[in-house]
Amino acid sequence: MSSIESLQQSFESYFKHRHFPLVPATLYDPLEEFLANSGKRIRPVLCLMGNELFGEIHQDAFHLAAAVELFHNFTLVHDDIMDKAPLRRGKATVHAVHGESTALLGGDVMMVVAYDYLNKMDGLHLKKIIHLFNKTAKEVCEGQQLDMDFEKLNNVQLDEYIHMIQLKTSVLLAASLQLGSIIGGASEHNQGHLYEFGRNLGIAFQIQDDYLDAFGDPEKFGKQVGGDIQSNKKTFLLIHALETAKGTDLSELKQLLESTSTDKVEKVLSIYRKCGIDAWANTLKETYLEKAYHHLNEIAVSAVRKEPLKALAQYLIKRDK
Amino acid sequence: MSSIESLQQSFESYFKHRHFPLVPATLYDPLEEFLANSGKRIRPVLCLMGNELFGEIHQDAFHLAAAVELFHNFTLVHDDIMDKAPLRRGKATVHAVHGESTALLGGDVMMVVAYDYLNKMDGLHLKKIIHLFNKTAKEVCEGQQLDMDFEKLNNVQLDEYIHMIQLKTSVLLAASLQLGSIIGGASEHNQGHLYEFGRNLGIAFQIQDDYLDAFGDPEKFGKQVGGDIQSNKKTFLLIHALETAKGTDLSELKQLLESTSTDKVEKVLSIYRKCGIDAWANTLKETYLEKAYHHLNEIAVSAVRKEPLKALAQYLIKRDK
Repeated sequence: MSSIESLQQSFESYFKHRHFPLVPATLYDPLEEFLANSGKRIRPVLCLMGNELFGEIHQDAFHLAAAVELFHNFTLVHDDIMDKAPLRRGKATVHAVHGESTALLGGDVMMVVAYDYLNKMDGLHLKKIIHLFNKTAKEVCEGQQLDMDFEKLNNVQLDEYIHMIQLKTSVLLAASLQLGSIIGGASEHNQGHLYEFGRNLGIAFQIQDDYLDAFGDPEKFGKQVGGDIQSNKKTFLLIHALETAKGTDLSELKQLLESTSTDKVEKVLSIYRKCGIDAWANTLKETYLEKAYHHLNEIAVSAVRKEPLKALAQYLIKRDK
Repeated sequence: MSSIESLQQSFESYFKHRHFPLVPATLYDPLEEFLANSGKRIRPVLCLMGNELFGEIHQDAFHLAAAVELFHNFTLVHDDIMDKAPLRRGKATVHAVHGESTALLGGDVMMVVAYDYLNKMDGLHLKKIIHLFNKTAKEVCEGQQLDMDFEKLNNVQLDEYIHMIQLKTSVLLAASLQLGSIIGGASEHNQGHLYEFGRNLGIAFQIQDDYLDAFGDPEKFGKQVGGDIQSNKKTFLLIHALETAKGTDLSELKQLLESTSTDKVEKVLSIYRKCGIDAWANTLKETYLEKAYHHLNEIAVSAVRKEPLKALAQYLIKRDK
């Protein structure tokens, strides 16, 4: 079985070439540049792991992994336009440098090239894979729309938020695993549990992300803490706090949402702590992580084959923070 | 063989249902509405004709036709954002009513659903069809990028313009025919000539479109004449006029490009006529139409099977205007 690092490296050497034609350079060069400024390639690694859980890694799993990575990057390019984000992975976003039209069109063509990679696979599993890929792509778009809709609402329930965040981020992690497992020849039963492992792990990861933005150690977290609070972003923490805080805590929290004072973050954190939001978030994260492990256990392959997925879960979810 | 009208009707009854889920309605309802405000469904009709040229229309040709129609509509929704267009087919554009983010995301999801339709086809020709569909989709995006690039240039050569307009509009017409013919079981030879028929017909149509915007009868043309001249849009006419006008004609034309005076259209038209741009455009249109018919002749099927394509060419290209 392969480690995370070796899969990252294998994928990198497969993926490290030009993905688009040379002309028009005004369209394609920004995309090559964006793709080269890689993230952690988590989704491609999940594709490869999903395959290797059930058998030797097939060349098709690399084509699939590239398709998933291109799809993911396409969503980032378009999300950055919608969010008017100036930075992504520490660099100026595509639309910030090249204009919104080129970023829009570039995202479009990146999506088409994702399907080119799918179409490189042999025909055996193609229809099944396109079906799940498309279902997931639609869900990711739905998640983004719900996220935008929620930004306009004052009152979002926790279950609605979990539904949205799951569409926006978890289903692609889950599908990456399942898509890989289709290539590995997994049974429907095993595919289902693998998907659920990924879905629950993704939710746990998102809870952790929200938690760390509020309570994380800035040194370890790698970005400014309190950004979500400053911008009133709807997170697991804020939504639960608004649902559970009472009396003066609730009214103070609502006042703070209107405020831009310098001690806003500190004061919101103090309410969060008083209402036990930090402990609640940790418990909720653990609940989803337990669900994820439960589904991993249900997959009918030997324990040793599951080790890389356990390592990945540990890599993504730090239990000591 | 089926007439244009009967193919339009068959497609309409296949296509007249919901294409997207019910929720989130904020994402999907605008798309249903946009698709229902149909155009002439030229591209789906071309898919069906491409099939019927070689054999009985297969159910897969309808799935294909729907995919092509969705792809075409996806490009319209996104182009309208880029062009900041307020109107499309006489109605407010998606982004004008629902905001740019929803239009962007809606276009994305429409593209995914186009692939859903492709994936409904049986596996036999799927890889070939996705290959040509994707090649065409990339070319359409390239055409749009070149169009935007050209807007920033003063000096665009006619051959560059033809290359751009061909990518932006003709290749999808050509590919619609060829894709349909793949389902009909056409040989590579016949597919190639059918594609070239569509490509040349598309260029002839675009020349006619530019011509009518300048010289058309407003009653028959159905939109305001002179809009391209008013907005300095690069067209076959303007590019050729800038290439061929001499002396005072050229300097006057260049001055008019800087002007917004009320008699701008009239004055530009007078220069066009003086330089014989109208006759030149008609000759160029005929040249491409002849090329189209040449390729139609080369297709090795009986003449009677080609009648609907001839009727379509006559429907698209009016020779008496």
